[in-house]
Amino acid sequence: KLMTLRKTSITLIILGFIVVSATVAFLLEPGTFGNWFNALYWVMTTMATVGYGDYFAKSDPGKVFTIFLYVFGIGLLSLVIGKVIDSLGSIQRQRGAGT
Amino acid sequence: KLMTLRKTSITLIILGFIVVSATVAFLLEPGTFGNWFNALYWVMTTMATVGYGDYFAKSDPGKVFTIFLYVFGIGLLSLVIGKVIDSLGSIQRQRGAGT
Amino acid sequence: KLMTLRKTSITLIILGFIVVSATVAFLLEPGTFGNWFNALYWVMTTMATVGYGDYFAKSDPGKVFTIFLYVFGIGLLSLVIGKVIDSLGSIQRQRGAGT
Amino acid sequence: KLMTLRKTSITLIILGFIVVSATVAFLLEPGTFGNWFNALYWVMTTMATVGYGDYFAKSDPGKVFTIFLYVFGIGLLSLVIGKVIDSLGSIQRQRGAGT
Ligand SMILES: [K+]
Ligand SMILES: [K+]
Repeated sequence: KLMTLRKTSITLIILGFIVVSATVAFLLEPGTFGNWFNALYWVMTTMATVGYGDYFAKSDPGKVFTIFLYVFGIGLLSLVIGKVIDSLGSIQRQRGAGT
Repeated sequence: KLMTLRKTSITLIILGFIVVSATVAFLLEPGTFGNWFNALYWVMTTMATVGYGDYFAKSDPGKVFTIFLYVFGIGLLSLVIGKVIDSLGSIQRQRGAGT
Repeated sequence: KLMTLRKTSITLIILGFIVVSATVAFLLEPGTFGNWFNALYWVMTTMATVGYGDYFAKSDPGKVFTIFLYVFGIGLLSLVIGKVIDSLGSIQRQRGAGT
Repeated sequence: KLMTLRKTSITLIILGFIVVSATVAFLLEPGTFGNWFNALYWVMTTMATVGYGDYFAKSDPGKVFTIFLYVFGIGLLSLVIGKVIDSLGSIQRQRGAGT
């Protein structure tokens, strides 16, 4: 149960980090993103290291914030992606046990 | 033999995920991709986190689906890439044992 | 304490690598980057494997240096990102122990 | 010594893979790359998952080859990057032992 509490708090930290990052990005460069959802989409595109180039920071403060996202955001999203893969693995193992 | 069955089912899940994702992407934004193969190419480019920027979602539903691909697709393709590397390693070990 | 010394020296090596790389990139292609900070931003964008495409090397020496960054820089930044994630984990564990 | 032989053969396999991939890419789309070195730069940009978008395949065979690079090339370059990081670690450990 303590494990579940910890997992929930990690999930909340990551979701909070994403929402705050999108808001900061939108406030720093409203003209670049147009609306908050596009800033969220850019934050996710950056944290996933995909970086299509449809959105990117143009001002110096925006670029500094982008570097911050590289150092703190990429690892956070990779945690989420890793958990999704682990879940897939454990679902498979349970199915295998059931057969 | 059970191991082989599991590996086959993981491969089938990932191939199915890729085919369904390409189809969903093409249905969401037919004008962006032009044809199904380009949507497949974009799905693979996204799951590999390369993101050239030659194709990217333009509508809000397309961007929501892109974020879904980041969370569920990147880990799946990294599984495939990891297996390919492990196979290379085991081929090498077998060759080494044969010498 | 020896561990702390080692961690400090790894951090200094990585910071030095980033500063020198940005300087080399700016000297190789001043016209591409405009100023040193933009070269730093491009180095970080490359080491994080995001690659928006807002900046990229145009000359052959610049492209050779970019390939050098792929081989030596990507792993270095992934070390930093990994440490940040480990720190988050240990902060959480300490909090959990304190509760 | 057997270990050294294996490491040398892995290095040769990866270098061979890169050279052959650049040649195939250049033969498939000579107009896209202009010369062999640009094709090599694109292969490295793809295998490192950076994908600036300055070069990308435009024909269907070129896109099929790109997908092949995602599945077989990304893992190979990540092996090289991992070895570089391990080497840095072991140099540091040797220095630490010498102090
Ligand atoms: K990328
Ligand atoms: K990119």
